[in-house]
Amino acid sequence: MTADWKEKAAAKRAEVHKGIPQEWILPSSVLDNYDENQSVSVLEIPRRFLSDSELAITENYSASELHNAIVSGKLTSLEVTTAFCHRAAIATQLTNCCTEIMFEYGIERAKMLDNYLETHGKPIGPLHGVPVSLKDSFNIPGYDSTIGYVSFIGNAPKTKSSFAEFLEDNGAVFYVKTNIPQTLMTADSENNIFGRTLNPSDLSRTAGGSSGGEGALIKLRGSILGIGTDIAGSIRIPALCNGVYGYKPSSKVFPFEGQTSPDVPAYIGVDPCAGPLATNLEDITMLTDILSDSDPTTYDPNSMKIDWKRPSTDKLQIGLYLGGQNDTPPADEISSPILKLGQKLAAMGHNVIDLSAVESNLPSLVDGWELAVKLYGINPDSETMQYIFKSGEPCIASLMASLPPKPESPHNDIPDEVPTVRDAIKVKKQQAETRQRWFDIFGAHKLDILLTAGAPYVAPAHDTYGPAPYTAMWNIVDFPALIIPLENPVGHLPAHVQVVAPWLKDAKLLASATVIQKSLSVK
Amino acid sequence: MTADWKEKAAAKRAEVHKGIPQEWILPSSVLDNYDENQSVSVLEIPRRFLSDSELAITENYSASELHNAIVSGKLTSLEVTTAFCHRAAIATQLTNCCTEIMFEYGIERAKMLDNYLETHGKPIGPLHGVPVSLKDSFNIPGYDSTIGYVSFIGNAPKTKSSFAEFLEDNGAVFYVKTNIPQTLMTADSENNIFGRTLNPSDLSRTAGGSSGGEGALIKLRGSILGIGTDIAGSIRIPALCNGVYGYKPSSKVFPFEGQTSPDVPAYIGVDPCAGPLATNLEDITMLTDILSDSDPTTYDPNSMKIDWKRPSTDKLQIGLYLGGQNDTPPADEISSPILKLGQKLAAMGHNVIDLSAVESNLPSLVDGWELAVKLYGINPDSETMQYIFKSGEPCIASLMASLPPKPESPHNDIPDEVPTVRDAIKVKKQQAETRQRWFDIFGAHKLDILLTAGAPYVAPAHDTYGPAPYTAMWNIVDFPALIIPLENPVGHLPAHVQVVAPWLKDAKLLASATVIQKSLSVK
Repeated sequence: MTADWKEKAAAKRAEVHKGIPQEWILPSSVLDNYDENQSVSVLEIPRRFLSDSELAITENYSASELHNAIVSGKLTSLEVTTAFCHRAAIATQLTNCCTEIMFEYGIERAKMLDNYLETHGKPIGPLHGVPVSLKDSFNIPGYDSTIGYVSFIGNAPKTKSSFAEFLEDNGAVFYVKTNIPQTLMTADSENNIFGRTLNPSDLSRTAGGSSGGEGALIKLRGSILGIGTDIAGSIRIPALCNGVYGYKPSSKVFPFEGQTSPDVPAYIGVDPCAGPLATNLEDITMLTDILSDSDPTTYDPNSMKIDWKRPSTDKLQIGLYLGGQNDTPPADEISSPILKLGQKLAAMGHNVIDLSAVESNLPSLVDGWELAVKLYGINPDSETMQYIFKSGEPCIASLMASLPPKPESPHNDIPDEVPTVRDAIKVKKQQAETRQRWFDIFGAHKLDILLTAGAPYVAPAHDTYGPAPYTAMWNIVDFPALIIPLENPVGHLPAHVQVVAPWLKDAKLLASATVIQKSLSVK
Repeated sequence: MTADWKEKAAAKRAEVHKGIPQEWILPSSVLDNYDENQSVSVLEIPRRFLSDSELAITENYSASELHNAIVSGKLTSLEVTTAFCHRAAIATQLTNCCTEIMFEYGIERAKMLDNYLETHGKPIGPLHGVPVSLKDSFNIPGYDSTIGYVSFIGNAPKTKSSFAEFLEDNGAVFYVKTNIPQTLMTADSENNIFGRTLNPSDLSRTAGGSSGGEGALIKLRGSILGIGTDIAGSIRIPALCNGVYGYKPSSKVFPFEGQTSPDVPAYIGVDPCAGPLATNLEDITMLTDILSDSDPTTYDPNSMKIDWKRPSTDKLQIGLYLGGQNDTPPADEISSPILKLGQKLAAMGHNVIDLSAVESNLPSLVDGWELAVKLYGINPDSETMQYIFKSGEPCIASLMASLPPKPESPHNDIPDEVPTVRDAIKVKKQQAETRQRWFDIFGAHKLDILLTAGAPYVAPAHDTYGPAPYTAMWNIVDFPALIIPLENPVGHLPAHVQVVAPWLKDAKLLASATVIQKSLSVK
């Protein structure tokens, strides 16, 4: 059995590797210097191997700027896509950030789009010609969605994910899918097929998870815009570990249906969502503008068209939250840039309220995490572990550390005693109360947004990320949240702020983030 | 104990009765002719006791027309409110449709609004001066929300329901609350405090429930616009039994929080919603226009601002659904006006598709009801029955017929065995599959709306309404649904059509309903 899974994984790896043109393979003289034990940055490496034009395409544009350059005829989608394919090929050789290599698919599509533009004199949509990367869970017919399970090799789905349909209808070009952790349930994007994604700013640190491949690829500018998913922090953790933008929308705002999942749905618990990671805030806002001009329910009837009207941000009411009374506060390199940002915003005329000074009993992150774990584990018939054991492959280290299979129940999915519906209602009640508590806090202080941390530390060593209370809190209550990278005052790894708005106030979240972004350029 | 509850109920009744001015009390020579055993209409009775001006006010205007007349100075809110108080006083003496008599509250408010208009030269909102009735579950400080439980007498809540706040901020005047069934869980609005609400078109027939008081009061034009709630049909059943308009929005569209409930929340199951009953469709649309111009989340943070943009209705794609293969079809007096309406709409150029001819396995109403019952009963710690037994009052007949307390467990809330979370997930899965099935049907035939029945019969005899599969189906899947009264081709009791649109397509539902309404005036 062991030989079997190893062979299967190796064969899959080799097959995928064939998708990278020989001339883009990095010399071993370069690759041999870099592995997960080296505390070095590889951010500059791609520059050595790209042409001037490829460098310009991958470094000097946002997604909307690329679109404009393509539509105006300054660039072709073929050139743009080829440049990002090349850079992604380099990025994945350095950090293992990609799973499926879809260069041929992307190049064919780019040619078609260039032809369309020439023939019709207009683009097919606001993403016309722009390459977009996808987390491995999104389905593209003809390519596997293994999501890191050896037992899923060869599962190439027949239908496209609803989010991918939405993006293609607006002109996007897919060219890679990106790496994730086995089970998607840890913050280390490692699996036995594609290996471990490394943090490009420091290879000895985690790239986060579960959308870790997106985080590393975007940081290396092998993608400018990628799509991840988030149920506990899977968009935001990679964003903050790598230092890119990551937006977890309210659930059901973007199309979600039609992905490959590590589990059967429980229908009770926490709603997952799909959302973008990007090199800049403008592209995230641009993506919501496209959504606002479309009807997401034509792609996924369980999604909904929310109110995208941009509210006034002249004078924001901003709450500062760095945990409850019994929570361990974040490391100084995380909290001090957030506090400094708060001061800056106050100096600009916004009202910044330290919630710990005005609320005697702020919700605790520790309690929130405890509740989150109960909610994630609500399904006694979870199949997450079965898909591992089916092939004989071992569990990855970060899974062993967080959710080890029980010796007496190796599938980890046969609970000693199935909880009653009364237990489930108790947990759902706690969830509703936590949500109400946050509504009350926002209401009492008339808050537009919260500033908080997304993690109490910068990207830690591999397999040490641990629980995710700073991100999971906002999944429990389904509030939209955004990671904005901040400069680390003392270290080389990126700091960040997490901006949070109430349920479905996604337009307010992004409008407020634009204010924050502007403040960052003010010295 | 028995004497005790009877005394309490009688005292409460007497106290409430005092709210009706002596000169509005109907002579016993009239009242003695009417009781629940008489198959007679009382629709014409109010006209005998109202002044010409009261008649004109209560019969010749829609809610928006009343508002316009008040703002233009043609009428005062005091005159309008007084007229509706008088008519409601007559209506409740004939049909037991009201619970709390809030005439003083309404008159004071009307005077204040008239003063405001005179002083400021502008109304406080688009409902300025317009009387609106409320189902008893809505809280108004100073008035009980007994919802028909003797044990709730004297519970006068301290805070106002979020929906009531929303209406008052827009200028509405409250003057009565309306009758409901004990537990709110039957279609017969009877309880041991206020008695039974009778159908004004035929006193021997049910007025429906649980918002039965609203249905009867509006039919008698003792109100032009009232607010009910719906989790199985509680807005639509009274609408179709009485022959008025009733709109069950998607859940969370209108503010809901802050009502008195017959149960503790289960958090798992079916989401309830609040919505209007009215004498006409325009007032329902007007209410959604107000919602569209407001932010419902300022009243209830768990509500959401949806997309109210009115879609084109030039060529509607309309599905016709009168049950699945194994369902008993509706009575001819129900189905034939619906089929005729379909023909009329087809003749007008819309595309009407008989779903039974194109779908081999339509969802069954019987299966839907079975699922609904499981979902409603998901909470093993329901307190619905406890509130009855607390006072010693007996269960009403319709409750005994549908949900009798078990001899071995008279509180009906201690299940023999508490179901497991696995059982709950199974039920939630069935719910999600039913919803997906309807999404697929709408998608496959590109349907804008469905035409269906809301019940298989016209208002039946008291305590015989039985299960509510035609309405509950749309609660299970959370699709918005609207009852439009139709002429009964053979009998004296109103027929109806239920119009249904997919989740959150409330704007499409109402725009399509306007097309249907117009078609009804075409001979």
